[in-house]
Amino acid sequence: MTLSPQALEKTIQTLQSIVGAERISTTQADLEMHARDQSAFPASLPEVVVWPQTTAEVSAILRHANKTSLSVTAWGAGTSIEGNPIPLKGGIVLNFQQMDKIIKIHQYDFQVTVQPGVLYKDMNKELAKYGLFFAPDPGANASIGGMIANNAAGIRTVKYGATKDNVLAMEVALADGKIVRTGSRSVKQSSGYDLTRLFVGSEGTLGIVTEATLKLAPLPEHFSAVVVAFPTVKEAAETVFDLIGAGLEPAALELLNATCARLVNTEEGINLVVAPNLLIEFHGASDSALQDTLTLAKEICQEHFGQDFQAGIGRESRAQLWRARHSLFEIAVRSYPGQSFLLSDVAVPISKYPALISYAAELMAGLGDKGLILGHAGDGNLHTVIFFPPGDQAAEAQAQSINALLVKKALLLNGTSTGEHGVGIGKQKYMALEHGENGLNLMRQIKATLDPAGILNPGKVLNL
Amino acid sequence: MTLSPQALEKTIQTLQSIVGAERISTTQADLEMHARDQSAFPASLPEVVVWPQTTAEVSAILRHANKTSLSVTAWGAGTSIEGNPIPLKGGIVLNFQQMDKIIKIHQYDFQVTVQPGVLYKDMNKELAKYGLFFAPDPGANASIGGMIANNAAGIRTVKYGATKDNVLAMEVALADGKIVRTGSRSVKQSSGYDLTRLFVGSEGTLGIVTEATLKLAPLPEHFSAVVVAFPTVKEAAETVFDLIGAGLEPAALELLNATCARLVNTEEGINLVVAPNLLIEFHGASDSALQDTLTLAKEICQEHFGQDFQAGIGRESRAQLWRARHSLFEIAVRSYPGQSFLLSDVAVPISKYPALISYAAELMAGLGDKGLILGHAGDGNLHTVIFFPPGDQAAEAQAQSINALLVKKALLLNGTSTGEHGVGIGKQKYMALEHGENGLNLMRQIKATLDPAGILNPGKVLNL
Repeated sequence: MTLSPQALEKTIQTLQSIVGAERISTTQADLEMHARDQSAFPASLPEVVVWPQTTAEVSAILRHANKTSLSVTAWGAGTSIEGNPIPLKGGIVLNFQQMDKIIKIHQYDFQVTVQPGVLYKDMNKELAKYGLFFAPDPGANASIGGMIANNAAGIRTVKYGATKDNVLAMEVALADGKIVRTGSRSVKQSSGYDLTRLFVGSEGTLGIVTEATLKLAPLPEHFSAVVVAFPTVKEAAETVFDLIGAGLEPAALELLNATCARLVNTEEGINLVVAPNLLIEFHGASDSALQDTLTLAKEICQEHFGQDFQAGIGRESRAQLWRARHSLFEIAVRSYPGQSFLLSDVAVPISKYPALISYAAELMAGLGDKGLILGHAGDGNLHTVIFFPPGDQAAEAQAQSINALLVKKALLLNGTSTGEHGVGIGKQKYMALEHGENGLNLMRQIKATLDPAGILNPGKVLNL
Repeated sequence: MTLSPQALEKTIQTLQSIVGAERISTTQADLEMHARDQSAFPASLPEVVVWPQTTAEVSAILRHANKTSLSVTAWGAGTSIEGNPIPLKGGIVLNFQQMDKIIKIHQYDFQVTVQPGVLYKDMNKELAKYGLFFAPDPGANASIGGMIANNAAGIRTVKYGATKDNVLAMEVALADGKIVRTGSRSVKQSSGYDLTRLFVGSEGTLGIVTEATLKLAPLPEHFSAVVVAFPTVKEAAETVFDLIGAGLEPAALELLNATCARLVNTEEGINLVVAPNLLIEFHGASDSALQDTLTLAKEICQEHFGQDFQAGIGRESRAQLWRARHSLFEIAVRSYPGQSFLLSDVAVPISKYPALISYAAELMAGLGDKGLILGHAGDGNLHTVIFFPPGDQAAEAQAQSINALLVKKALLLNGTSTGEHGVGIGKQKYMALEHGENGLNLMRQIKATLDPAGILNPGKVLNL
């Protein structure tokens, strides 16, 4: 909805009474800064941006918004890539930048309690002082609140799980402003309905996270990165399946096609064979255990014609490698200036990964350098990026068609339309196919129960 | 509610039209067999027991029950210990004994799809042929449906997680008979609200599971059990904290007090020092890695005056040890014939475990052999069992008071009133304290949305 000038004026007065005048903005620059994420979805401006500092402020804002049916969209770092925080119906954007505290590091429990605005990399820098880290690693310097909202995952999920597997307790502001505390700091909990998991991944459509307690992992002491090239993406994908099946438990297992290899070589000074590559990391209980793992991994790679197997990559080169992998999406966007793009995010059981990858390679064979295949392969998660000139309707239709075919294939292979980016705007059209009408209806009922006025991030997940 | 003879007759006619006459019973013997679990909660008879064989039958029964506001309680193996499946309001018990198929073993994905009536131990026997097992291990030969309903956990959770962490996808019959499929076989999923986790642990009050796909783990190749005795439970609990803090990742870490040690010695032919004991298991990537772990574990135990440290316990003695641990609750009940008992199930963050254990030991000091302390210590999970003569109101009041104090202490220590037994009947009185009124109200709203007629396992979790 768009507010009339009078209604907007009244809203701003109310917001001022809650947070004061300084943490509210209606400037065009601020509105535009909160109008789109890193996806290619078109911008949509909010009407006002607010920077809350306390849960009480968030609660009061929601209470007012709920009474006046005003949309409220939470905003972290804007690094999502499925349009998740775009304020499609205007209203208020709550920017959590000023709720970014590490409240307490529970060092001996391997846990941390934080405010949602803390940035993932900043938090991990602080946790490293205690030998700990939050493992889900989306690459971008996302906010923890955003990671929780979208159930972000990334390269470490193959070993450590996604965000949803690493949240123990939360404080959540409901649509009417009421505050709920979910879960506890006990890792074992069987006390009533799992409210924590209901909110994680709900993309701010059921409630707004104002505090979270996360599970941490000890920083690995013995590790090695590995890179290895393959003649085809199919051989690479079959290697992934065999590495997992052999119980090698990689801590990262990433697949890149030749185009991706060329891009990171050019932009990041890496020296990959320009061919499909696997980027792998292993952690070991000891150096000798790690060596055993690397030997077996090399054998498996060679069975699939892996070449130029480089193991024993230490701290510095390993950091460079993962930095390059993390930058890949940005590099790609930068390398095709002015081009539009479509990003996919399907995931399947690992035994089906070779079939999925082969299918993707076949669909994209004609795209040449405009088609990237990059995946968190160890999870069965595939991303493709297809670039096309903006306004080229035929090219866009082709990209959309490939994306749709990949989703349908993933669902046929017992997988999902979205492994880690969330539903946002782009995946809504597949929700009925994935969950069935009954499943989708149940989600709609839950949404209606928790947010009867439909104020929370409207138009996302369920188009409600 | 109790049905009038006419209403019962009509219900039976309808049930017969759905499943035929042979899979319905109203005999007193059958009603009594479905009137209580392994807790001390009083029996409550259903009015009719039905053994469905298909999801379509479950759906049709629910459709009828929902229309006529007839209670429906799902029944697995009856091994729960918080009164979870007792049909408090009569009605229909659905016994899933005849829906006990292993539908498909997805060997290469480390997954299995089963019907809910399959028994945990039977399933794992079959999975062992593939080198796989379902890790959550409640001890009793529970049904998978029951484990899902109660989010069962047990001795392996410290390494492998609870049931909730190991369910990927489910088929669920809703209160109105509609069938929903939740999740997918992809380990990575970020597609809409997490319906799977909403149903896991909901104790059959939101829907009835008719099929589930579970995550499996490879059977460990290198393992060793360890037993070690301590002068006090406090020293044992501090050892637990140090073992976890050292990153040793035990695959089981159990604490028993002296009374428990004496019981398993007598009944299971084990030879524990009659003192507080830790029973531990470690898995290693190799035998040498395992030896390193055992050496470090021994040092940590000795720092806490651990004595008679026995490591390197192989397959046979290990099996005997865990059988004894699993039998402990039954042994105890058998060893105090005719006695009533009260069982607790609190859990706290691991750093708080020594404080919790010390408090429990202090509260129970006067009980002598009538007070057992046994815990899944690696998870911060404590069970106590207190025996008392039935009808001895003072003794029962003392047991209830100790239980209440333990719950309050656990909540003060940022823990939970129930780590793995569920809320059932006994923990309802602590739900407001644990979750707050807003949290509890949200659970009530969810229950009302999913089961508006209140037919699903009424009187459990929320007293609705």
